[in-house]
Amino acid sequence: MAFLIINPGKKVAAWEKRIRTLAPEADIRVWPDVGNPNDVEFVLTWNHPRGELKKYSRLKCIASMGAGVDHILRDPNLPRDIPVTRLVDPSMAQSMSEYVVTNVLNYCRHMHIYWENQSQGRWAPRIQRQIRNECVGIMGLGQLGAFTASRLNRMGFPVVGWRRTPQKLDGIDTFFGEAQMDTFLNQVTILVCMLPLTPHTQGILNHDTFNKLQPGSFVINVARGEHLVETDLLEALETDQLAGACLDVFRKEPLPPDHPFWHHPKIRVTPHISSLTNPAAVVPQIVENYRRMIAGQPLLNVIDIEQGY
Amino acid sequence: MAFLIINPGKKVAAWEKRIRTLAPEADIRVWPDVGNPNDVEFVLTWNHPRGELKKYSRLKCIASMGAGVDHILRDPNLPRDIPVTRLVDPSMAQSMSEYVVTNVLNYCRHMHIYWENQSQGRWAPRIQRQIRNECVGIMGLGQLGAFTASRLNRMGFPVVGWRRTPQKLDGIDTFFGEAQMDTFLNQVTILVCMLPLTPHTQGILNHDTFNKLQPGSFVINVARGEHLVETDLLEALETDQLAGACLDVFRKEPLPPDHPFWHHPKIRVTPHISSLTNPAAVVPQIVENYRRMIAGQPLLNVIDIEQGY
Repeated sequence: MAFLIINPGKKVAAWEKRIRTLAPEADIRVWPDVGNPNDVEFVLTWNHPRGELKKYSRLKCIASMGAGVDHILRDPNLPRDIPVTRLVDPSMAQSMSEYVVTNVLNYCRHMHIYWENQSQGRWAPRIQRQIRNECVGIMGLGQLGAFTASRLNRMGFPVVGWRRTPQKLDGIDTFFGEAQMDTFLNQVTILVCMLPLTPHTQGILNHDTFNKLQPGSFVINVARGEHLVETDLLEALETDQLAGACLDVFRKEPLPPDHPFWHHPKIRVTPHISSLTNPAAVVPQIVENYRRMIAGQPLLNVIDIEQGY
Repeated sequence: MAFLIINPGKKVAAWEKRIRTLAPEADIRVWPDVGNPNDVEFVLTWNHPRGELKKYSRLKCIASMGAGVDHILRDPNLPRDIPVTRLVDPSMAQSMSEYVVTNVLNYCRHMHIYWENQSQGRWAPRIQRQIRNECVGIMGLGQLGAFTASRLNRMGFPVVGWRRTPQKLDGIDTFFGEAQMDTFLNQVTILVCMLPLTPHTQGILNHDTFNKLQPGSFVINVARGEHLVETDLLEALETDQLAGACLDVFRKEPLPPDHPFWHHPKIRVTPHISSLTNPAAVVPQIVENYRRMIAGQPLLNVIDIEQGY
């Protein structure tokens, strides 16, 4: 019975150490030093090589090292009968909401323009955007989206939300499914993507979506690079349908050096830092699931493989 | 009986128009076209030429065009028996608190480093500062400071406050006067100056103050340039006692092109925009005071000339 960590190309020492401390009984292995694959019952992973997981005949749980599971489900050879779990971490919601609040405020207060002006020694006050006149639209109202929506709302921003399936949220006007998507988009001036990545949401930040926003809107993507159709963003910035974008996630990470986003004057790039997973905060729930698996108890935070989140 | 606007070097058309709409009965004049100085009973001003106000023998009210009155009181020839009023504007507190929140978050989330990295096409994630581990110290807990303190507190920041005279504030640990200044400073990692400018507070952001903060602290000044001893700031940045500073106000504005702050890598400069006065929001209270003056009723928001605020 082994606990295998698969995180290609990344250092996992901090994870391994935390897990050893909390679960000294576990036989922990780090890919690619797997040993006998038939020992492996629990896999903790981010971006496993496709096809890898079907090698473990006794696998009982696939645990994501983050809030998203798209990196697991995109494997066409994923064994579909093994439960997949995600991390649910309040500090992740805190961190991601901070990032969104920071960059919504930076946009309203023209901070990137002032910082650019500073480099040129230029003193040029601008009238700020009044936050009560903006309308922030949050796509995706799971744990992360709902937390961020209420944060912005408490700061005085009008906030609306959109999600696939009906579920009300206090104080936030919420729209559901494809049928209400246009009504949602039509009122938004600052669009924030916090959706899980699924076949339904892939490419959702596209030409049609941008065109339904208020002219001159701003877009923030903290979800996945695959939500965004990159050429559609560049076109919407060109025509001024969008005033700008703040992107923390990309189809390829690190963002390749020759990518046009790096030097686009209307795009702010950050290196996938809206929420860094803190092993100390999440290893307890991983160990809890490991022990539940051994004891044959129901696992926590199991995702719905068909829905994709 | 005339209402005189004195705002040298600035356009006052927006003010004048608003005042005319709300007080069509007023005989409004714009300096330097004063006409007979003995007509002037009410002056609305920002940065009047020193000595100018003593020319108006029938003056009954000196109204500041902003929240501060230091620009009025610094006139050695100010007639000391005329009431001086300030503006109290909730949208000013909102705007200034937004600016402080934005830049406290930018510091915690390394946003200026990411934006600099972007210009070099550099992908380099950094561990964020946890807001629960910072301690924001607000100097000055008047209308603006108190509002900002509670905003930061509601976002999860530990916040302490300091003011000259005792007055409690819900949820904020508050320290008073010189005697408690050191205890206040010793715990602070992010110092925000929101004090009125008086002979007591001039130069309060100095070597001694910086040295009492936690090592590697951050300083934000949204009050007045004269609060800061500029050479002391440069020295504290040099020795890393301070990690950085965000300055919106300067001894000379616009900040002169050859000033060392413009190109200092640890200083963020903005062009006095933390709170721009919106004539539409404040003209009603100015007209109210104008009518109270005529009716011989007590004026609103009269400052204490001895205290200086």
